[in-house]
Amino acid sequence: MGITIAIDCMGGDHGPNVTVPAALDFLSRNADARVILVGLEEKLRAILPAPVPERVAIRHASEVVAMDEPPALALRNKKDSSMRVAINLVKEGEADACISAGNTGALMAISRFVLKMLPGIDRPAICAVLPTVKGHVHVLDMGANVDCSPEHLLQFGIMGAMLVAAVDHREQPTVGILNIGEEDIKGNEVVKQAAELLRNSGLNFIGNVEGDGVYKGEAEVVVCDGFVGNVALKTSEGLAQMLSTFLRQEFGRNLFTKLVALLALPVLKGFKRRVDHRRYNGASLLGLKGIVVKSHGSADAYGFRHAIERAAEEARGQVLSRIADQVARHVSSSSQAAAVAAQESA
Amino acid sequence: MGITIAIDCMGGDHGPNVTVPAALDFLSRNADARVILVGLEEKLRAILPAPVPERVAIRHASEVVAMDEPPALALRNKKDSSMRVAINLVKEGEADACISAGNTGALMAISRFVLKMLPGIDRPAICAVLPTVKGHVHVLDMGANVDCSPEHLLQFGIMGAMLVAAVDHREQPTVGILNIGEEDIKGNEVVKQAAELLRNSGLNFIGNVEGDGVYKGEAEVVVCDGFVGNVALKTSEGLAQMLSTFLRQEFGRNLFTKLVALLALPVLKGFKRRVDHRRYNGASLLGLKGIVVKSHGSADAYGFRHAIERAAEEARGQVLSRIADQVARHVSSSSQAAAVAAQESA
Repeated sequence: MGITIAIDCMGGDHGPNVTVPAALDFLSRNADARVILVGLEEKLRAILPAPVPERVAIRHASEVVAMDEPPALALRNKKDSSMRVAINLVKEGEADACISAGNTGALMAISRFVLKMLPGIDRPAICAVLPTVKGHVHVLDMGANVDCSPEHLLQFGIMGAMLVAAVDHREQPTVGILNIGEEDIKGNEVVKQAAELLRNSGLNFIGNVEGDGVYKGEAEVVVCDGFVGNVALKTSEGLAQMLSTFLRQEFGRNLFTKLVALLALPVLKGFKRRVDHRRYNGASLLGLKGIVVKSHGSADAYGFRHAIERAAEEARGQVLSRIADQVARHVSSSSQAAAVAAQESA
Repeated sequence: MGITIAIDCMGGDHGPNVTVPAALDFLSRNADARVILVGLEEKLRAILPAPVPERVAIRHASEVVAMDEPPALALRNKKDSSMRVAINLVKEGEADACISAGNTGALMAISRFVLKMLPGIDRPAICAVLPTVKGHVHVLDMGANVDCSPEHLLQFGIMGAMLVAAVDHREQPTVGILNIGEEDIKGNEVVKQAAELLRNSGLNFIGNVEGDGVYKGEAEVVVCDGFVGNVALKTSEGLAQMLSTFLRQEFGRNLFTKLVALLALPVLKGFKRRVDHRRYNGASLLGLKGIVVKSHGSADAYGFRHAIERAAEEARGQVLSRIADQVARHVSSSSQAAAVAAQESA
């Protein structure tokens, strides 16, 4: 039994020129997979080979959500956008997952409206993958929620752990909470309370992870609120860009350094491959009754294909039932504990 | 008229072995400066040349604050610690500034207790300097305050701008507030309100700066709460370390790559110099009635010397009176505005 991925082909900075070739590349590497390409049929056919390849279906959608469109307007007015139609396909069971490189806010709003939340989860979270010295780390939330309660952070921990179980086949991944280590004041109240909840959650919780611990690979899942997560992610992007600029400038300084750069090319390529953000493209919108993956808007076909792979892995690993089961287990053990406490105090 | 810097020689991972040579190097480059070396006299004399060089005074202090000592205990029990004695020298006007590589929490607690806050400033903030594509940026707070009100963030903006005026001789530096740019939700309530206050503050406020904008040099001063600032700083440290590890590994892969590394050495050195964190060593504790600079605990003599230079620049640039004046101006214009508003509504 194969899997089917619905692809919003119109989203992102490059639209079908990137999404369609990425989809075909994905199919050539995944014999069990089918794709439904969603968008302006004419544009899609112009890029697709004729006849349309096997395992490819086209679903026409007459509208496109603009990258800068206010999410509330996209939700209200664009009922036939490629983004919404792709999400509908997941809702109706025609696709196992959907993916878009479009407007993040709109994707979040429409997904939440169409798919609804899983029972026991209050808010969706954006989970990204980052490289570490040891491999990679899943970090959430990356910007969906600016103010989080301890309970929200606990739910993020459960969702992140189940995502890692689904895609990395690690049944008890380590979970840490992002915190600061200043001697005087170890974190704010919300983080302290969330750590307490995580410690009693049955997850493999390892405690606080400081900023530098994220890239040291101290935990497989790192939980934080969306404000902090987004700042950490964007700061990292900015630093990496700056370092790459400086390195290029130093290698471009004169004829000798340019020659050295030529010799160093295989080394620099090897280095670049290890931190290539395109290989980590694809953030998961977790907590919904359906698998939704967000690609970076500027992704090329290589990066977008990686994001499709991610959606496929989540479907194969049954991330949704894993999250639902774990939340149910957690809720029942909490209410048992509450019942015991009530009995003892009676 | 020269300046005098009090140096806690016992703090940090390496103590006098780093702090004393750094102080002597600093003196050789700053003919107008004197230093007071504070610590266990015997240990200091063992490292100093005999006779003690000109412009060097020794002040014995019998105790040392341990790096992992709870700040409250250090404050209560170690009245004769090198850290406290150095701060006392500032309080008593014998030194224009003091510097320590010791326990951050203790330095903060003792500075606040001994020196007190400047009028109109509620809390001290830690301000660090980071390299950018365009030069450098001052970011505060880096971890002194985990929960900040909009008014605190406004005060950070004033202090940061005055610090840049003092040390970089830029009278109207640009000030931004660290925020996230997710389409749906632009920042939390505190940040929105703080932005409003900064917009009306008379500072050269340029609005939101996202994480990547910090290293792009979008503003000369970036304001954030201590939790976010600390995470951003530590995350950057972790990423830089990881990239450096990967680069070393790739250059160490085989005989050819090692040979290339040898050729590339001048390039890599030039690169390293541009992002050498030792050149940015020295975070300012702002808001106190005295200049206090915190060096990284693991700094070597080169790094510690840079932190002493920083303390000296702050003293020469009269950062304290600049902050005090600006706060006074701000308070008077706010109360004028309030008076006008009251009159209008009457």
